[in-house]
Amino acid sequence: MFDFTITAKNNRARTGTFSTPHGTLQTPVFAPVGTQAAVKALTPAQVADLGASLVLSNTYHLYLRPGDDLVAELGGLHRFMRWPHPMLTDSGGFQVFSLSQTLKVDEDGVTFKSHIDGSGHRFTPEKSIRIQENLGADIIMAFDECADPNDHAYIKDAMERTHRWAERSLKAKRRADQALFGIVQGGIDLDLRAASAEFIASLDTPGIAIGGLSVGETKDEMHAMLDVVTPLLPENKPRYLMGVGTPEDIIDGIARGIDIFDCVLPTRLARHHAAFSPEGRLNMMNAIFSRDERPIDEDCDCYACKNFTRAYIRHLIVAKELLAGTLLSIHNLRALIQLVEDIRGYIADGTFDKKVPMLLKQWKNNANRGIGNSE
Amino acid sequence: MFDFTITAKNNRARTGTFSTPHGTLQTPVFAPVGTQAAVKALTPAQVADLGASLVLSNTYHLYLRPGDDLVAELGGLHRFMRWPHPMLTDSGGFQVFSLSQTLKVDEDGVTFKSHIDGSGHRFTPEKSIRIQENLGADIIMAFDECADPNDHAYIKDAMERTHRWAERSLKAKRRADQALFGIVQGGIDLDLRAASAEFIASLDTPGIAIGGLSVGETKDEMHAMLDVVTPLLPENKPRYLMGVGTPEDIIDGIARGIDIFDCVLPTRLARHHAAFSPEGRLNMMNAIFSRDERPIDEDCDCYACKNFTRAYIRHLIVAKELLAGTLLSIHNLRALIQLVEDIRGYIADGTFDKKVPMLLKQWKNNANRGIGNSE
Repeated sequence: MFDFTITAKNNRARTGTFSTPHGTLQTPVFAPVGTQAAVKALTPAQVADLGASLVLSNTYHLYLRPGDDLVAELGGLHRFMRWPHPMLTDSGGFQVFSLSQTLKVDEDGVTFKSHIDGSGHRFTPEKSIRIQENLGADIIMAFDECADPNDHAYIKDAMERTHRWAERSLKAKRRADQALFGIVQGGIDLDLRAASAEFIASLDTPGIAIGGLSVGETKDEMHAMLDVVTPLLPENKPRYLMGVGTPEDIIDGIARGIDIFDCVLPTRLARHHAAFSPEGRLNMMNAIFSRDERPIDEDCDCYACKNFTRAYIRHLIVAKELLAGTLLSIHNLRALIQLVEDIRGYIADGTFDKKVPMLLKQWKNNANRGIGNSE
Repeated sequence: MFDFTITAKNNRARTGTFSTPHGTLQTPVFAPVGTQAAVKALTPAQVADLGASLVLSNTYHLYLRPGDDLVAELGGLHRFMRWPHPMLTDSGGFQVFSLSQTLKVDEDGVTFKSHIDGSGHRFTPEKSIRIQENLGADIIMAFDECADPNDHAYIKDAMERTHRWAERSLKAKRRADQALFGIVQGGIDLDLRAASAEFIASLDTPGIAIGGLSVGETKDEMHAMLDVVTPLLPENKPRYLMGVGTPEDIIDGIARGIDIFDCVLPTRLARHHAAFSPEGRLNMMNAIFSRDERPIDEDCDCYACKNFTRAYIRHLIVAKELLAGTLLSIHNLRALIQLVEDIRGYIADGTFDKKVPMLLKQWKNNANRGIGNSE
């Protein structure tokens, strides 16, 4: 279980397989986000039809609603949401620091108020692991502290606390059928990122996550962080860049040795009527599409593009039909999954490096980066 | 084309086939409603998976948005919304009288304001047929006037105008690949209903609709109207009871010789968190379902019941996930389609009459009647 095998490399980019109790992932992989045990506007059958292999769900949200004890009682998250394939949960750290009204961080944990009803709660590394064990995802995360990337003193404190919490998370873990990943933090400070990469690598977890990026820093800053972090990580473990990203971020991330991505962007853009396309990001509500008989993307093989015109999708948006969000979610998710499938092929045949400029050009202007990783 | 063949009868109930340019319907049939060229919250693939064979769409809505000329330019409604199976459009009459601010009815037609933006419009029988020809459904309706069932003098005037408009609708019709049904009106007056049934029957249209019911009258009143109307209609033509209904109304309607039904109730109830079930109508948001591991209906073969617990569906509702509406729409539509499929079998084997009391008991308290037939 949790074997990671690299089958081909192209400079720093890798393709391979990562085995989990619910199936083997082909990496690099892009995971749709099912924040509240559902990928927004889609049935699990539709998500599977997209070629999705890994789905992420959020510990913070499921802890609050419906409650991780209830999910456990009903047989765990796979069974609850009817996703029999690999799943990943985050630690709740990111949402505690971004969504809730955080009352107090101390060495032991974080006291916060629910964003839903203001009720008081407390997360510790042990509590986060207990919740994630109740949920039962295949890949789980150490509890971490996400700091403002521009507050240097706080970043260092938060990083060191994240390291101590990672050790406590590992100690608290009981289930053998879950892979616990440590999380590299360190803001946008190269020295802190290097120190964090070395420390987290030393914990010998079956995979390593990189957190605290795509939270407002520039693309150049993110690339600089990846350039210092990934060379310090063990070659033989999958690397997960949390909450990323746009098509460009995925291409850039894979080129820097990342294996796993997740992002709410495809489904969030869908709810805002935006579609990825080779022409750039399209606002499908635009009147220019009123009589446009083409699909969103003529080269896309998704259900939306195989069946519907831009004119019909625009009509659904104008008429406020929920089907608009469903079709755009299907297209946007398939676009990223297809991109990653294509890249796996390019790495396997040794052409990825040469294709990066073409891919970046093709996907240029498709989306601004999403801030945060929660819907 | 438009051959109606009765293959079995059981007292007044009939089962048979009605052929259209887009396929042959097995009758009795229940049609999901796709008001704005989409069955709410479902893809056409999901609608087809339910066993739906006929979908209704609304002339008034599509005329206003996206415009019937646009639909025609894009190849007609079947192609626009990707429903390659039989379709039916109403005449727009019901919505003009129920949704818009009607300015003036005269002998020639109706002047009204759009419920969307208050813009002024005019429908005549000729205009309604022209719009329906642009949309291109297999079954289309004569333009009719829907009167308040309690205003006797108005009902008589409206019925007589509806008869003159039916003659004009027939005269205006040009396409040979569309079956135009006349509509019986007459409120809840037995004499008017009889007169209307005789007049509409005399027009020799390939099918006959019964309008102006399920608009606020009692069940007994509706049954009395059907009891006077259907015996006056030709045996060899399909009868369509517009905007009906609940499971009970469908059972009662079939027992009185009705062949075609449509209603927004299943999808509208879904958006209000209600599910049809043999236990009666369930409010799926109820906390008693929090930990209920059963499907909505253990005997239902729909995607929602085959896969998800009541607990999960309740979670989706509480968490405001769109998937709740999708799953409940799938279940509620499948429940009525399954009911009608079962009844076809009962009529074929001669047991329907005997089973009516059992069926009515089983479906009792499942839903109040919907008012109107527009979402």
